[in-house]
Amino acid sequence: MNVNGKHFRTIWLGDDRKVVQIIDQRQLPHKFTIEKLRTVEDVAIAIKDMHVRGAGLIGATAGYGMYLAALRAPQKGFDLYLLKAGTMLKETRPTAVNLTAAVNRQLKAISNGRDVKEKRRIALATADRIADEDANFCRRIGEHGVKLIERISRHKKGKTVNVLTHCNAGWLAFVDYGSALAPVYAAHDKGIRVHVWVDETRPRNQGASLTAWELGMHRVPHTIIADNTGGHLMQHGMVDIVITGADRVTRNGDAANKIGTYLKAVAAKDNDIPFYIALPSSTFDFAIADGVREIQIEERNQNEVRYISGLYKGKNVSVLLTPNGSRAKNFAFDVTPARLITGLITERGVCKASRDDIRRLFR
Amino acid sequence: MNVNGKHFRTIWLGDDRKVVQIIDQRQLPHKFTIEKLRTVEDVAIAIKDMHVRGAGLIGATAGYGMYLAALRAPQKGFDLYLLKAGTMLKETRPTAVNLTAAVNRQLKAISNGRDVKEKRRIALATADRIADEDANFCRRIGEHGVKLIERISRHKKGKTVNVLTHCNAGWLAFVDYGSALAPVYAAHDKGIRVHVWVDETRPRNQGASLTAWELGMHRVPHTIIADNTGGHLMQHGMVDIVITGADRVTRNGDAANKIGTYLKAVAAKDNDIPFYIALPSSTFDFAIADGVREIQIEERNQNEVRYISGLYKGKNVSVLLTPNGSRAKNFAFDVTPARLITGLITERGVCKASRDDIRRLFR
Repeated sequence: MNVNGKHFRTIWLGDDRKVVQIIDQRQLPHKFTIEKLRTVEDVAIAIKDMHVRGAGLIGATAGYGMYLAALRAPQKGFDLYLLKAGTMLKETRPTAVNLTAAVNRQLKAISNGRDVKEKRRIALATADRIADEDANFCRRIGEHGVKLIERISRHKKGKTVNVLTHCNAGWLAFVDYGSALAPVYAAHDKGIRVHVWVDETRPRNQGASLTAWELGMHRVPHTIIADNTGGHLMQHGMVDIVITGADRVTRNGDAANKIGTYLKAVAAKDNDIPFYIALPSSTFDFAIADGVREIQIEERNQNEVRYISGLYKGKNVSVLLTPNGSRAKNFAFDVTPARLITGLITERGVCKASRDDIRRLFR
Repeated sequence: MNVNGKHFRTIWLGDDRKVVQIIDQRQLPHKFTIEKLRTVEDVAIAIKDMHVRGAGLIGATAGYGMYLAALRAPQKGFDLYLLKAGTMLKETRPTAVNLTAAVNRQLKAISNGRDVKEKRRIALATADRIADEDANFCRRIGEHGVKLIERISRHKKGKTVNVLTHCNAGWLAFVDYGSALAPVYAAHDKGIRVHVWVDETRPRNQGASLTAWELGMHRVPHTIIADNTGGHLMQHGMVDIVITGADRVTRNGDAANKIGTYLKAVAAKDNDIPFYIALPSSTFDFAIADGVREIQIEERNQNEVRYISGLYKGKNVSVLLTPNGSRAKNFAFDVTPARLITGLITERGVCKASRDDIRRLFR
């Protein structure tokens, strides 16, 4: 997508194809910084300290990390070096499914090379393929999802379609396009009038800092709201469709996503507003059926609730919001039961959030 | 209630009975500052700039403001001076019903005095009465509401009762006790094990800064959460009852309260968790039936969403959270339809949120 009028992916190789470049997302929305990663250690830090985040982008970054490892690996002990590099990468974000998948895919592909030169060539090709696949899947999510927005636009006789989204499931979370925002970008690029209500998404504020930034850079009309606001908007006809991403979707269609997604889903149901989850198929976890019961919800540090960072006199500072003696709890995700989900938008098409419909599309 | 072990109301007279003392709530939770108000102009600023806030406390402050005006009013032109003072006070927060009511009540009462000396005595007595009534109503809300908590406590065989609340409807919003928190304080003081989930309540964060502070000062166990979290807690049995305050309740039982209340109500319904609104009867607006359609929702400055203030290096600073080019919308309230409300806790008792039940209790 575009940044200051120029096309960017979230990760790309330098001209010499030996340096990986990323956007340091910790600096957003206040500063657009491109960071160069030269070693697999650089990549591990970038993933662990969240210079990059989002399922698709973490996977792609790990893929390129393995390529950088292959470039540095010695002739003698090449395979062991790569195995260790892979283990190090996997440990940076243990719950990120795409990370493990990308590392394992690289190890398997590279093992087919007959010599170090070929192994390095394979590592590069595989890293590119992981990134390209991610971008392609998101593009196709956009192509399928845009039809939902087009239908609403026709129904409203061309008046602006109001989409509400939660957290960041845009191109910053993937290699390009995004999942939840892919249909929005596709609609905007087609000239359909679309406007996005951006939940700020406390406590980490990915909506206010990332979603708003990327929509603004691509010139998509949008408005930031406190997470408390969506219900009121829905009651008053100011939301036509809700689209969010997901971190994990069970075989029954229950969706784990950023904390607060469930509240929007239950309000959408109460107001008869369609609620969609957009996801590449890698987000399905077919081993699990009942999301509310079976998905373990990560608890993060309470200081993410107690403190918030923002721009003060030109620099990012962290301010205390709560009384010193009060503790906080910080659940990172919640689960939206399939009964509240109108449909799933995937790279293969749109289906109902039901076991049968998911199976039809993916088995 | 208690602050550092000492009993406080939110407003009280100095020993000479010529100075009004308040807690400057803008400094909370980081600093406990007592402010002295000597003139009705001081009072107007304190209300307008939100040194004090909350329906009950605004009413009581206006009552004492009229008393300060009576102290200063000249012998000649006394009544006109008071009329002007009243108009000035009413204009500080035009939508605050209790403010107008307190000023009008003072004007009417004072007009019964035969001379300036008697008028001043009446002004003081009326101001005290407005404050005492507010405290008494809240105490009785606590007495009625605590029965709900006791019942849950018995049902849980004495295990901790988890109450979720939104915004601040505690003693800081009234003269003492509070509305939503009055049953909590009553339970805690009776030795019932109770714990409060405190929604931080973006954008103005009254939960994180005021509710958490006052609960902490009275040593009530509590935990601050992002507003997004309540649904997840309800899905997992971590909330036994939701109690919030209200800004206005219609004759049908629809309740306008801080933005985001509706999302908690709809989630409580989805999880079969009792959802109560606590209010003194002055909060009823019998002129209105359908809250969602008829109550105009105040829009506040977008900078309350774009910026947030917190403690940085020992002082309160305001930091920017959003991209420079992104706008925000800031609806202050939403309306929870009566169908989602289990009951109303008032000073006269608990009733259903229905026209018939409300009428039975209040007509």
